[in-house]
Amino acid sequence: MARTRGGIDLGGTKIQAVVVDEDNAVLGQARHPTPTSGGPVDVARAMAGALHEAATAAQVETRALAGIGVGSPGEVDVVLGTVGNARNLPDWLEPFPLVTTLTDLIGAAVAIGNDVQVATDAEFHLGSGRPYRSLLGVFWGTGVGGGIYLDGRPWLGRGAAGEIGHMVVRIDGAQCLCGRRGCMEAYAGRAAMEGRARRRLRRGHNTDLFELMEKHGRTRLTSGIWARALAHEDDMAIELIDEAVAALGAGVASAVNLLDVEAVVIGGGLGLRLGEPYAARIATAMQPHLFADTRPPVVELAALGDLGGAIGAALLADSLVSAPG
Amino acid sequence: MARTRGGIDLGGTKIQAVVVDEDNAVLGQARHPTPTSGGPVDVARAMAGALHEAATAAQVETRALAGIGVGSPGEVDVVLGTVGNARNLPDWLEPFPLVTTLTDLIGAAVAIGNDVQVATDAEFHLGSGRPYRSLLGVFWGTGVGGGIYLDGRPWLGRGAAGEIGHMVVRIDGAQCLCGRRGCMEAYAGRAAMEGRARRRLRRGHNTDLFELMEKHGRTRLTSGIWARALAHEDDMAIELIDEAVAALGAGVASAVNLLDVEAVVIGGGLGLRLGEPYAARIATAMQPHLFADTRPPVVELAALGDLGGAIGAALLADSLVSAPG
Repeated sequence: MARTRGGIDLGGTKIQAVVVDEDNAVLGQARHPTPTSGGPVDVARAMAGALHEAATAAQVETRALAGIGVGSPGEVDVVLGTVGNARNLPDWLEPFPLVTTLTDLIGAAVAIGNDVQVATDAEFHLGSGRPYRSLLGVFWGTGVGGGIYLDGRPWLGRGAAGEIGHMVVRIDGAQCLCGRRGCMEAYAGRAAMEGRARRRLRRGHNTDLFELMEKHGRTRLTSGIWARALAHEDDMAIELIDEAVAALGAGVASAVNLLDVEAVVIGGGLGLRLGEPYAARIATAMQPHLFADTRPPVVELAALGDLGGAIGAALLADSLVSAPG
Repeated sequence: MARTRGGIDLGGTKIQAVVVDEDNAVLGQARHPTPTSGGPVDVARAMAGALHEAATAAQVETRALAGIGVGSPGEVDVVLGTVGNARNLPDWLEPFPLVTTLTDLIGAAVAIGNDVQVATDAEFHLGSGRPYRSLLGVFWGTGVGGGIYLDGRPWLGRGAAGEIGHMVVRIDGAQCLCGRRGCMEAYAGRAAMEGRARRRLRRGHNTDLFELMEKHGRTRLTSGIWARALAHEDDMAIELIDEAVAALGAGVASAVNLLDVEAVVIGGGLGLRLGEPYAARIATAMQPHLFADTRPPVVELAALGDLGGAIGAALLADSLVSAPG
């Protein structure tokens, strides 16, 4: 049981925990909602709770785990074990010592990493990226995140590489939630798409998006709501998704023109929910922008699905020598 | 004299040759116009002629050189020693055995590489990039080329990395000479800028650009003509250069958002001619698009100037064990 590890993917809406064996096969998993009030300590408690539930499902004690990995949004300091500036989490702007807090709560050693990077690690080592030495992970969700592998190794730059969502696809274009203009995410991020839908609704355009949202007890346009609206052939949903796919096509092709990677792996909440047909649509939207257009990269859906982030987080625990407890 | 080497930068308008010593100091150099008629053999003869002149200036025999490196446009096959699809060179679409042809003409071993990559190599090892482990070379000339160093090594992808000029800065934007739309080069490449100037002139806009061109005996809007028109405060020149700088700002910032490199080095005919003030303007134009905007990369002008490509080509000759002749 020595190499049994835990992984926690901390997201703005959900906390996904897994317990995996030495071959990274999932022995148990649990998903809890992310607290929307309180602060970092409450979120850490919810994370520990999700991990406990996953461990129970796996029939192991959390103290017996060889280590726990965490994939986190915000500014992650791997050395200090802190997370700051996590704007989708409650009252979490100052750096918070997540590693020591979780170590105390769980009783096992904890390692931390960037959420998008650990999801890319998982796809590279265990998922759709396995056959390749270079890849770009594109995580199409609330925002659009990117992870990079080159020559078999992650490329992190000075710590902030992979911000594919903030590549400019239209100079002086739409306002992004980051405050800049014309970012790919301003067209393709789910949060920005919801803003666009609300503005069009106010201008008198028709849509069933918000009725579907209320009918399904949501307060936001989730990936599931977008998928349902597309299935209902809602004009505004089709139009906004078309614009998102066009932006992803231009932005991802730009990244490929720069890096000439072998493969692009599409993940993220919206990418996974819309699935293979939309990975294929993104590939088609990339094609007219590719410079080396006779040999485009392979474009594939993330193979590990919703668990990829948590499984990638568990890979981080390999860097921990042994549990302290 | 054993490590005295030659380097040739083959461009669409000029052939630049250098002879360098073991410390890569330039012992002699020569610049010849690139033949505009004939075919690859004529270009190869002109290259050999330029190298002979550089060797004469350096007081060495070309046969005594430890090797010759060539930086070439088009599709370079390093293993086969061929160049094909060189659209700016006369009748040079089919792969031509440039390495064996030059070896015969010069009597020394020849190595070949991509023109933009060898210029990036030169800046990384000997020029403005020396203090850094990661950099992006941006060569602003007829087109806009890019070269990448990550963690101290060139990144070539599957052979076509660095096509920064064809990153999309405006979806459905201006037609690029590559046939695609909205590429950075469609706004910032000198060839595209000339097309834009001609179209605006035909639509009745005023400019002195073409009078300056004729007065100086040119048939194209060279970097020098653009610089003169800016000095004359020609409205159209100012406007088109402003658009070019805006496109470079968005495109280079997008590349930095993806790669988070330490430094950007600006070279190329137009970049070098306009010099430091324009490198600074590009840095300013990047700033509003940078995601990690509190620590932008260093942006510097290429230190080796017009000779960078030829010096970088000479670095290739280090891979040659000895001269055959």
